[in-house]
Amino acid sequence: MRETYRVELESVIEDLVSMSQDVQVAVRDSTRALLQADDAIAERVITEDEKLDRVADDIEHRCFSLLSLQAPVAGELRIVVSALRMVGELARMGDLAAHVAKVARLRYPEIAIPERLRPNFARMAEISEQMVGTAGSTLRARDVEMAETLAQNDEEMDDLRRSQFRLLLGDEWPYGVEAAVDVALLGRYYERIADHAVSMGKRVIYVVTGAVPAGAAQWP
Amino acid sequence: MRETYRVELESVIEDLVSMSQDVQVAVRDSTRALLQADDAIAERVITEDEKLDRVADDIEHRCFSLLSLQAPVAGELRIVVSALRMVGELARMGDLAAHVAKVARLRYPEIAIPERLRPNFARMAEISEQMVGTAGSTLRARDVEMAETLAQNDEEMDDLRRSQFRLLLGDEWPYGVEAAVDVALLGRYYERIADHAVSMGKRVIYVVTGAVPAGAAQWP
Repeated sequence: MRETYRVELESVIEDLVSMSQDVQVAVRDSTRALLQADDAIAERVITEDEKLDRVADDIEHRCFSLLSLQAPVAGELRIVVSALRMVGELARMGDLAAHVAKVARLRYPEIAIPERLRPNFARMAEISEQMVGTAGSTLRARDVEMAETLAQNDEEMDDLRRSQFRLLLGDEWPYGVEAAVDVALLGRYYERIADHAVSMGKRVIYVVTGAVPAGAAQWP
Repeated sequence: MRETYRVELESVIEDLVSMSQDVQVAVRDSTRALLQADDAIAERVITEDEKLDRVADDIEHRCFSLLSLQAPVAGELRIVVSALRMVGELARMGDLAAHVAKVARLRYPEIAIPERLRPNFARMAEISEQMVGTAGSTLRARDVEMAETLAQNDEEMDDLRRSQFRLLLGDEWPYGVEAAVDVALLGRYYERIADHAVSMGKRVIYVVTGAVPAGAAQWP
């Protein structure tokens, strides 16, 4: 019984890691859809998001069963409780990638992002995507040091976001209101994906050390 | 022991209800700060948000203790697991109210929302605020019917959001890019507050009936 339980707990973690890989693909694909105005890829991201949601429901259900049937304590309880929060975060990142894809689809065959901002968005998307990957690897390896690097990446995200706003709100924004609204919201979506990755990292730190970082409950 | 446990479980729920009242006040105040360009109120919302975060951490900690020391099952386990998710949602709504207050503060002494859109925002804010209140009452009363009304409110939110976009993206937006960006992001913040209220309602339905609504894990 005890053995089955450990196997199930490991399998929940493996499925979270695997889900984070799927979310990483979703972020990558949504960016391709956005920056290359590819509506077939956009469509795929939106469809795949429904699958992600079903995977998330399954993981949540299994966490509940573990709590109910096995009454874990200490470190194992921390894992299950954190898994419940991480699965919500991953599902949310998937939703945000789908939001990006929906904007791409809405503007197709145009590219929603004005040319001058594309390098900024390409970099923002690249960081977000890497952060999702790092969050998954961090969980697989239960690696506190790797988790801590996530907060550093987040600073570059903030810088990129600030330079978007400088351009948006400067005197020389020539792209009109629609592009401005798209940039503001799309920048927000990537920013939130990165926030969720940081908060996944913090949860891994909690799993490993038992220390609750300040402001833990309001994650993500 | 068992008696103490039930008292503690009830006290967690009461504190969630009380937190939802504080969040409701935060939403109301942030709207006042926004629509009346009142930076003293904006400041208060931002400061109070830190308190909300501490309350959330405390509730999360107590949920963990309940799981650890009491190993609840069935309906009581559903309450604790749902409380862990609801406290995250309430903290997030508080953050979103603080985001609204920060935009208000940034534009002070101007009002960030152009006059023509103020009735729209006033209504959006009113619905969000009421929804937070309803989510709290729903939890206190464990009232499935009341929880279901939250989804209906959400439809009016969607309509209001759509009419914002119609105005923003129509040919006659005379207010410039900065106001457009503010409107897009502020509308998004209120929309997300409402989403979280709906998802709190779904969690109450889960607590009462044990039925997991589709797409449960990706709440909020």
